[in-house]
Amino acid sequence: MSPKVSDSTVRRLSRYLKILEARCSEGAGTISSDALATDAGTTAAQVRKDLSQFGSFGKRGQGYPLEDLGTHLREILGLGRPWRVALIGAGRIGTAILGYPDFRRKGFEIVVVLDEDPDKIGTPCCHTIVQGAEHLEQTLYDEEVELAILAVPAEVAQDLAIRAVTAGVRGILNFAPVRLRVPPHVAVQNVDLVMELEALAFELTHARDDEAG
Amino acid sequence: MSPKVSDSTVRRLSRYLKILEARCSEGAGTISSDALATDAGTTAAQVRKDLSQFGSFGKRGQGYPLEDLGTHLREILGLGRPWRVALIGAGRIGTAILGYPDFRRKGFEIVVVLDEDPDKIGTPCCHTIVQGAEHLEQTLYDEEVELAILAVPAEVAQDLAIRAVTAGVRGILNFAPVRLRVPPHVAVQNVDLVMELEALAFELTHARDDEAG
Repeated sequence: MSPKVSDSTVRRLSRYLKILEARCSEGAGTISSDALATDAGTTAAQVRKDLSQFGSFGKRGQGYPLEDLGTHLREILGLGRPWRVALIGAGRIGTAILGYPDFRRKGFEIVVVLDEDPDKIGTPCCHTIVQGAEHLEQTLYDEEVELAILAVPAEVAQDLAIRAVTAGVRGILNFAPVRLRVPPHVAVQNVDLVMELEALAFELTHARDDEAG
Repeated sequence: MSPKVSDSTVRRLSRYLKILEARCSEGAGTISSDALATDAGTTAAQVRKDLSQFGSFGKRGQGYPLEDLGTHLREILGLGRPWRVALIGAGRIGTAILGYPDFRRKGFEIVVVLDEDPDKIGTPCCHTIVQGAEHLEQTLYDEEVELAILAVPAEVAQDLAIRAVTAGVRGILNFAPVRLRVPPHVAVQNVDLVMELEALAFELTHARDDEAG
């Protein structure tokens, strides 16, 4: 398996999988690379290039068999098995992600929820009970947590990230608007919502430049 | 201004700006490209390359003047003026974004909040009152909304997006796990939180392959 797969390729693979699953649930059996490309907002050549990195799928002229390709993509994406996840910070953004229908279906299982708010500790959240963060290391270790969703204020994010890593966490989905410093074996995906708005502001500003120019 | 600036460049520019503002508030006057690169998790060569696309900043050997470069970056990113934003869908994820300290400070102003939940309509949210979606077009048009944060279930996202575009919206931050079809002049940024977790699952799965192989 090539270790050099770009982030945008991975995102397209996720998108292909979602499309395959939707088509499958509609009762279809195969999908052409053209149709897959159209639904994913890319080109058929890109689809073929992305998939060819991971083996040979489908037969020329017959399209991809949905179930087979779906199974392969799930394996490629690491979704062939469940993932034990901790939610650190049970605020609006942290709990919002649990509401996505795909969250559980894709094998992400929240096994620990931590928060420092005394009003939240002891209350139910996502089939578990919110715990305080004082025993974070032991709790995450005992529960064999691999992924952490870090949805806490910027000031405390770095400290909590390192404590989670100490407990064995190897992947962090970080919502705090701060760049985490973690050991190289730990994967971090940052979701900075204001940065997403800035990207829109940039696009709109320069679209206007183009029109004017 | 080059119209061909990659998404990852724009994200780095956002990050540089955040670093400059933090250093500025600490009382510093200049920053070297090395220091900026370290804080942003990139190389000094990348910093210089990114900035050189937009002009000539700083003097050799003296670093970048924080205030000047900050002002330039805000202009480049389109943050030199306020943006009128509508929040469509006042659920957890939609309202969470308003809690980010940077949101208002960067000039994003929520002027309309819409939701279809009768329990929410008429209640205060973010210095305004939640309205129903039945007059969406007129409301967004009257309020001169340019950006919409679309935080609604997948089934209704496409319809609401088109209605917002009809009302003059040119940029959409989309949290619905669905690919929106909009006219080419409309910019869309998708935030698919489950896809972010899938990217982590991919990285961790293949890190393990590398170790094993």
